[in-house]
Amino acid sequence: MNYQFSKRLDTFSSSAVREILKLTQKKSIISFAGGLPAEEHFPVAAIGEAFERVLAAGNKALQYGLTEGYLPLRESICKWMARKGVTVTPDDMLLTTGSQQAIDLLTRIYIDNGDVILVEKPTYLSALQVFRSYGAKLVSVDADEDGMVLADLDAKLKQHKPKMVYAIPTFSNPTGKAWSLERRKGVLELCRASDTLILEDDPYGELKFGDASITYPSLFSLDQHPKGSCVVYTSTFSKTVAPALRTGWVMGDPDLIRHMARAKQAADLHSSSLDQQTLHQLMEHFDLDGHIEFVRKEYESRMRQMADLLREQQWPGVVWNEPKGGMFFWLELPESIDTGELLKTAVDMDVAFVPGVSFFADSSGKNTMRLNFTHNDFERTIIGMKRLNQAMESVLVK
Amino acid sequence: MNYQFSKRLDTFSSSAVREILKLTQKKSIISFAGGLPAEEHFPVAAIGEAFERVLAAGNKALQYGLTEGYLPLRESICKWMARKGVTVTPDDMLLTTGSQQAIDLLTRIYIDNGDVILVEKPTYLSALQVFRSYGAKLVSVDADEDGMVLADLDAKLKQHKPKMVYAIPTFSNPTGKAWSLERRKGVLELCRASDTLILEDDPYGELKFGDASITYPSLFSLDQHPKGSCVVYTSTFSKTVAPALRTGWVMGDPDLIRHMARAKQAADLHSSSLDQQTLHQLMEHFDLDGHIEFVRKEYESRMRQMADLLREQQWPGVVWNEPKGGMFFWLELPESIDTGELLKTAVDMDVAFVPGVSFFADSSGKNTMRLNFTHNDFERTIIGMKRLNQAMESVLVK
Repeated sequence: MNYQFSKRLDTFSSSAVREILKLTQKKSIISFAGGLPAEEHFPVAAIGEAFERVLAAGNKALQYGLTEGYLPLRESICKWMARKGVTVTPDDMLLTTGSQQAIDLLTRIYIDNGDVILVEKPTYLSALQVFRSYGAKLVSVDADEDGMVLADLDAKLKQHKPKMVYAIPTFSNPTGKAWSLERRKGVLELCRASDTLILEDDPYGELKFGDASITYPSLFSLDQHPKGSCVVYTSTFSKTVAPALRTGWVMGDPDLIRHMARAKQAADLHSSSLDQQTLHQLMEHFDLDGHIEFVRKEYESRMRQMADLLREQQWPGVVWNEPKGGMFFWLELPESIDTGELLKTAVDMDVAFVPGVSFFADSSGKNTMRLNFTHNDFERTIIGMKRLNQAMESVLVK
Repeated sequence: MNYQFSKRLDTFSSSAVREILKLTQKKSIISFAGGLPAEEHFPVAAIGEAFERVLAAGNKALQYGLTEGYLPLRESICKWMARKGVTVTPDDMLLTTGSQQAIDLLTRIYIDNGDVILVEKPTYLSALQVFRSYGAKLVSVDADEDGMVLADLDAKLKQHKPKMVYAIPTFSNPTGKAWSLERRKGVLELCRASDTLILEDDPYGELKFGDASITYPSLFSLDQHPKGSCVVYTSTFSKTVAPALRTGWVMGDPDLIRHMARAKQAADLHSSSLDQQTLHQLMEHFDLDGHIEFVRKEYESRMRQMADLLREQQWPGVVWNEPKGGMFFWLELPESIDTGELLKTAVDMDVAFVPGVSFFADSSGKNTMRLNFTHNDFERTIIGMKRLNQAMESVLVK
C-alpha cells in the first residue's frame, strides 16, 4: 500500500518537549524539561471523594454529554472567574481537553492557510505547532520584561495585518515573566483598533509568587466582554488540580464559542464528562483556593531554591531572571553555545532541560534553555543542578 | 470587534443528532434519536472499583501521560483484538477521545482540500461532518443488504480516484446491516489494487444478535496488517463500557499511527489518562466479556420488541429490516414524506428520531429515518412508539 498523506503532514513537527518526555521516562534522569506539576501535591483523596460523589449520583453520569461540556462545571467556573473580574455565563464558555484543545479549535475556525499570527518572542512551543499545522504564517513580536514591545507590535500589526495575536501575559511559558498593566492595556488598544483577535493563554495565572497584593488582571477582564470582545481566554485545571483529568476551558464572544463548539463536535463530540463531573464535585466540596495557596507556596520555595542554586553556579555569560510566577526559569547562554547540542551532553549525565529554540517562531534562540522548577523536590533539584553544572562546564569557559 | 472567521467555518454544520439531543433534554420527550446505550447497564460499581485501584497506585496516575495513550491499556487492547484475528503491538495503536477523534485525526493527516472520499449510502453523519470540514469531496457508493455494491465501488474508484473509503461494515450506523464476507473481501481487493485507504469504523461490532456462530471478521483482520495495511481500524469503549470515559482506539500501519500521534499532540496533547487507566483496571479485574454478553442479550430483546411494535403499526409504504446488531432500525417511508417535517410533528407529540437525510452525502434520503432501540426500556418504548404512530398517522394515508 502506497500511502498518500496530506500536504499538511509536514507541518506536524513533533514537540521537542514531548519527545524529551519520552526520553526521560528512563528512571535515572532528573528532568527539568517537562512543564510538570509536582505529583506529591495532587489532591488525590479529594479527587477520589469527588469521583465517588459522581458515581453515587446515578448511572446517567456515564452517558454521553453535551459538546459544550458539563453545565454545572461551566457554572462553577463562571463563579470562579467572576472573582477575577470576568462576567460570563455558561453560554460564553466551552470545556476542552486541556487548554491545548482550545488553541487548536480557535485556530481551526479562525485561521486560513497563509494568515498571519503574531506571537511573543519566545512563546509556548505547542501553540506554534498548532498554528503551523493550519498553515499560519508566524511573525514574532519583540518583548522585554514588561511584555510585548508596543512600538514593535504596532509596526507589525500595520505591516502584516495579522488575524490573531497569541499571548501568555501572566507568567509566560517559557520566560516566567508577567506583563505590566500598561502593556496589557496598550496591546488591547492596538488589537482592538486593528480588529485583531487576541488568544490569551492563561494556564499559570494562579501560580503567583511574591507580594500577594500585586494582581495581574487578564486581558479578557480588561476588555469589554464577553460579547464583542477582541480576546478569547483559555485556562486549565492541569496546573491547579492535576493534568490527567485533561480539562480546560475557553471563554469569549458567544458566537465565537458556538463556532468552536461545532468544530469540537467534529473533533471528538465532547471531552471526558467523567473528569468534568469529578472536577465539578471537587470545586463544590473541596477547598480549591486553600489547595492552590498551598501549591503556590511550595512552588515559590522550589523557585527560590533553584534561583539560589543558579546563583551559586556563577556560569559566565549566562543571564536569567527570577520568574514572577508559573513553572519555569529562562536562561540565555553565550551566543556561541547551541543548547540543542548541550542537551545531548546533559542527557548523558542524566539531566534534561528544553533547548529554547523550539519556543521561537523565527528559529532564533539557539543559545537559550528552559528549566522547570516545580516537578522535582529539593533533593533531586540539588542533584540535577550538579549534573547540569557538569554539562555546562563542558561548554562554558569559566 | 469585527471577527474574520476562517473559510473553513461554513463546513462545520452542526450535527442533526446532537442538536436533537439538546432538544430532548426536555424530560417529557421519549427519544429514539441519539445513539445512546442503556444507562441502567453501565457497570458503575466496577468502574468505581477500577478508579479506586488507579488512585491507590499512587499520585503519578494524575500526571501528564503519553500522547499515544496509557501503555498498559494499549497492551490490554492488543490482547483483546488478538482474539478477533488482529495481531498488533502498542506501537500500531493510538488511544483517542472516542473513535470520533480517530476519524478526525486520520482525515487531518491524509486528506487535502478537494480530495475525494467514498462513503456508503447512507453512513454515519458525524464522519461526513469531519470529512467536509477538511474540504473533502464526498461521493456515495451504492449499497444493498450485503454491503457496498462492488461494481459501483469499482466504477467510482476509477472515475474519482479517491484517497479514502469510509465504511462501517459491521452493524452499520444508521442501517444496522452487516456486510457479507464476499463483499468484505471484494472491497479490500478493489481498494488495495487502487492504493485507496479504508477507514473501518467499528463501534458496534460487539453488539451482535442472532446466531452466535456467525462471525463478521473486520476488514483490518482480513488484510495484511498492521504494516502496510490499506485499512485503518477504529473502535471504542463507548458502547461496551460507557460513553462518559470517551476512550477509543485506532490501529494501522505504524508510520500512519505515528503521524496521527503528531497531529494529536497539536490537537490536545493527550486524552484523559485517568479514564484510560480506569479502563485498564476494568479490563484486568472485571468480566468484560460477560458484561458485553449481558448487554448484547438485553439489546437483542429490545430490538425484538421494537421490531414487534413496528410490525404492529402496519404503516403503509414503510420499509425496514431487522438489524443484525448494533443500535438502530432504519426506515424508508414513501417518497412523498419529508421526515424533517415529520420530526417537528413528532417533537410536538413528545417523541424524537433522526431524519435520515443527514446520513446521505448527496442529500438524498429525505424520506428515511433512524430509530434507536437501545436507550429506552420496554415501557418507554411502547409509549414512544404510540406517540410516533400518532405522528406517522398525520402524514401516512392508511
